[in-house]
Amino acid sequence: MSNILDKINSPQDVKKLSIDEMNTLAGEMREAIITKVNATGGHMAPNLGIVEATIAMHYVFNSPQDKIIFDVSHQCYPHKMLTGRKEGFTNPDKYYSYSGYTNPKESKHDIFKVGHTSTSVSLATGAAKARDLKGEKGNVIALIGDGSLSGGEAFEGFDNAATLDSNIIIIVNDNDMSIAPNSGGLYKNLKLLRETNGKAECNFFKSLGFDYYFIQDGNDLNRLIDTFEKVKDINHPTVVHMCTLKGKGLAAAEQNKEKFHWILPGTLDEKEDLQPAAVEESYLTVTNDYILNKVKQDPAVIAISAATPGAYGFTPEFRKQLGKNYTDVGIAEEHAVAYASALAKSGAKPILPLLSSFVQRTYDQLSQDLALNNSPATLLIHWGGISDADATHLGCFDIPLISNIPNIVYLAPVNKEEYLRMLDWAVEQKDYSVAIRVPFGKFVSSGAEDTTDYSKLNKYKIVEEGEDVAIIALGSFFELGRQVKEKLGLNATLINPHYITGIDEELLESLKSNHKLVITLEDGILDGGFGEKISRFYGGSDMKVLNYGAKKEFTDLVPLNELYERYHLTPDLIVKDIKECLKLEMV
Amino acid sequence: MSNILDKINSPQDVKKLSIDEMNTLAGEMREAIITKVNATGGHMAPNLGIVEATIAMHYVFNSPQDKIIFDVSHQCYPHKMLTGRKEGFTNPDKYYSYSGYTNPKESKHDIFKVGHTSTSVSLATGAAKARDLKGEKGNVIALIGDGSLSGGEAFEGFDNAATLDSNIIIIVNDNDMSIAPNSGGLYKNLKLLRETNGKAECNFFKSLGFDYYFIQDGNDLNRLIDTFEKVKDINHPTVVHMCTLKGKGLAAAEQNKEKFHWILPGTLDEKEDLQPAAVEESYLTVTNDYILNKVKQDPAVIAISAATPGAYGFTPEFRKQLGKNYTDVGIAEEHAVAYASALAKSGAKPILPLLSSFVQRTYDQLSQDLALNNSPATLLIHWGGISDADATHLGCFDIPLISNIPNIVYLAPVNKEEYLRMLDWAVEQKDYSVAIRVPFGKFVSSGAEDTTDYSKLNKYKIVEEGEDVAIIALGSFFELGRQVKEKLGLNATLINPHYITGIDEELLESLKSNHKLVITLEDGILDGGFGEKISRFYGGSDMKVLNYGAKKEFTDLVPLNELYERYHLTPDLIVKDIKECLKLEMV
Repeated sequence: MSNILDKINSPQDVKKLSIDEMNTLAGEMREAIITKVNATGGHMAPNLGIVEATIAMHYVFNSPQDKIIFDVSHQCYPHKMLTGRKEGFTNPDKYYSYSGYTNPKESKHDIFKVGHTSTSVSLATGAAKARDLKGEKGNVIALIGDGSLSGGEAFEGFDNAATLDSNIIIIVNDNDMSIAPNSGGLYKNLKLLRETNGKAECNFFKSLGFDYYFIQDGNDLNRLIDTFEKVKDINHPTVVHMCTLKGKGLAAAEQNKEKFHWILPGTLDEKEDLQPAAVEESYLTVTNDYILNKVKQDPAVIAISAATPGAYGFTPEFRKQLGKNYTDVGIAEEHAVAYASALAKSGAKPILPLLSSFVQRTYDQLSQDLALNNSPATLLIHWGGISDADATHLGCFDIPLISNIPNIVYLAPVNKEEYLRMLDWAVEQKDYSVAIRVPFGKFVSSGAEDTTDYSKLNKYKIVEEGEDVAIIALGSFFELGRQVKEKLGLNATLINPHYITGIDEELLESLKSNHKLVITLEDGILDGGFGEKISRFYGGSDMKVLNYGAKKEFTDLVPLNELYERYHLTPDLIVKDIKECLKLEMV
Repeated sequence: MSNILDKINSPQDVKKLSIDEMNTLAGEMREAIITKVNATGGHMAPNLGIVEATIAMHYVFNSPQDKIIFDVSHQCYPHKMLTGRKEGFTNPDKYYSYSGYTNPKESKHDIFKVGHTSTSVSLATGAAKARDLKGEKGNVIALIGDGSLSGGEAFEGFDNAATLDSNIIIIVNDNDMSIAPNSGGLYKNLKLLRETNGKAECNFFKSLGFDYYFIQDGNDLNRLIDTFEKVKDINHPTVVHMCTLKGKGLAAAEQNKEKFHWILPGTLDEKEDLQPAAVEESYLTVTNDYILNKVKQDPAVIAISAATPGAYGFTPEFRKQLGKNYTDVGIAEEHAVAYASALAKSGAKPILPLLSSFVQRTYDQLSQDLALNNSPATLLIHWGGISDADATHLGCFDIPLISNIPNIVYLAPVNKEEYLRMLDWAVEQKDYSVAIRVPFGKFVSSGAEDTTDYSKLNKYKIVEEGEDVAIIALGSFFELGRQVKEKLGLNATLINPHYITGIDEELLESLKSNHKLVITLEDGILDGGFGEKISRFYGGSDMKVLNYGAKKEFTDLVPLNELYERYHLTPDLIVKDIKECLKLEMV
């Protein structure tokens, strides 16, 4: 029974409530969030912590005339519940009706489509400046978590926001956690401010020129409303620093904030008293085993994380075992790459995993700090490939991003043995900046040792030698290549190229003698990718080339099989294309 | 006569000097810098300001065991003079022997190859961590200017550097200037610290956890040496905030710091009493005229700069005329793009110029903040193209970087009329994120009004209709396309594609009927670029395609004609290739 929530269809309805009713509402919202997120998976603890603050924001401010801009927006569930979308949380039939991030297509109360961190202050500054240029009124509010403060874009935003001579309110949601525990000098200052009830003179926000308000208990509606009313319509840049409890109202989440930051469906139903299931071997476990073993042999090996250690299996236990051979740099991908580059150039052996979607935040550092210095750091790119993800978290752009930068060797293993061989080569060599696209999805073991010498760059591997048609199947699409060959029924050549960043000219040249068609398969967008380089190579010759991969577009939660159909990435569709192409040629 | 400088061949020689001798040395170095930079062009004012601090660093610290890591490294001339490379400044025959940035290939005293801003603290943190992991000793020193502090990578670096429990010394060279005057909340704090002799409690650096030392006169050798000796071998993260005079010792530079940040050869020889020469029309002047005119009509138009206004002709007078319709966000390209995106999404009309080399700093914001939100901001990309620049400032990577992001319309005008038509369309439309690659080099006016409707995306323009060979010549290489056609002597088709980000499938399809070969010309690297998309389009057909552009490599101060030869970018070489390709086909 959700007696109050039932009546909330827009922020206007929140404004009619008493404090007691709002507290009841908070309880009802929390219950719905816990049930819904446990059913579907999603961000649990961040949303539980922000319930009261969201109610208070909508009570005091007038959205959408007042613009509330969320950072990352993984904490927008309570906001969605109060802005006409509560059924997405209360009605199981509607659980999948709304995305987990803000989206202007869903509601006028969502100002931007957001999913990466540290953008809210910059976006709010632009919105505030536009308001001023157009002579309009209204509050512009950015809501940013303490974890996101470490990102460079956030700092750049603060620096410029402070120069506005008009209204901008930055609400810093300080729950003393990033996804994992915070790391960084800034967090000592937040701690000092918490301990002094906001009164310490040395204040990061004040040093940047902001007026400053502190809320010790950011889950207390009275205090929240009181402070928000004070800063409403304020005429200068202002920070409200509020302390909330991440995971509030769910004991398990309050106790294990990292585990409950984002959960899989059914996490709450796990029986605590059972022995944990044996961890299955995966690309993550073999990576961790490799690193632990390596660190024992060589104290110069160091693993780095940019605030998402869980995504690549860097568990709290693993991090503890590494000790000083592990650095979490915070949400700071730019620094992570520069730091790794300097470590490698100074004789250490850094291993830096990054998610495909987040490597986008550090193009210039890959180019200037890393590649231009030929720094022999090792980057592991996770979650690369076409996916059914939210448009903010797609993994299909890393090949064009990384592979068109000079000097980087970008490798695509197809199984465990290749992956570990490449990883060890990358870590031990001193000549190249190396990135490895860790296969995403099925774990494959060939069972046979890989003895390839990866220092001989750009040597493709002919797995099965044939004629007429050559299939160059990159990384996670190697298996698709094998299926195409089988389906095709011809004695096609099957090639595992290993290298994303180079052309095996000798091999490609040799194919001309007895092949009419080369097809390329890559798990990412075609534009600027791997296959186009093969097309360019053969452009002046009689060889025909068909490139397979994704279209350049932002897809948003589109099922994978639908995308594969759309892009002709099934064996059936590819074989059909091949036959058409060859027939046409024979005419 | 340089009596002291003559004897300085390494930092060891500096250590033997008295304070008086060092002051004499500073004068000699300054004289050499002024003469040399006026002869060759280069960074004048930054180097004049840092002479004493460089002498003091080499007097106190032991390079290269102690590592001095420069930010941007445009202020490394005095360092080069003290580390065996003084002849590059004293001997006109050697003026071009050394680059204007640090370069490990030149000297063991140069730790990294650097040319972009805000990287030094991140790099120093990595170097310090590597030292600790390997159990080595020595100081790691980052030298960073106040302007560079606004960059996100610098902040990310500070945040992580503060967590080291060992030696790292960050020397902040505060001359109260970026290239242009500083803008940003941080700079109020630097001002407060200057005014309080470093004693203000609210201290940006302390808020991040650093120990803090202040030097009021950073051109006073006694004070510099005294402070550096105090912090030498310190066992925790430390900031030395020193105030220097940018341009010191050259009256003109002290008075006009912006003009003398970087100068052309002979600037000091200009006669002040002459009337300034009439400013010739250029892509910069027509842009400024357009913006000024537009702002008069529409207060929502706003021009933005990321700290390099001079590079795109945003003179102090122009900025003053724009008033509140101009924002310099500081060295903060990430924020600049997010800010522009939010401005446009909120109904303002932002115009943001960025240099090709610096747009690299903001890939994720182009993708997530801008393109994913379909925000109708206008970006002007300057200095894009193959060049003889330093490897840190190449402009040949922006096409792969920008054009493989969905939703961005990237345009390539070939003359003034097309440029202004595209610019006005971009500013007034509401559907797309638009970037325009401003032609770099020769200013071309067709004299005829351009009436193209650029809202009809991806329509290429057939400039001359022919047969057999089609030349698709993009942007600044359109003229090369025309020369190729003339040299070829055939009735070739000449195409101006206008759009970098899309394929005119209808036109390309139609070429199949009476063309055997398509060549593409682009002023940038081929990998991931424009031409490869044409190759992919024709991959399954009989059409042959040759792509022309640069190789994926970091070139370093290589003369342009040498690069054109290397990449077959002369009419002669291209015509030769075409004839070979067609002959082969006829065999």
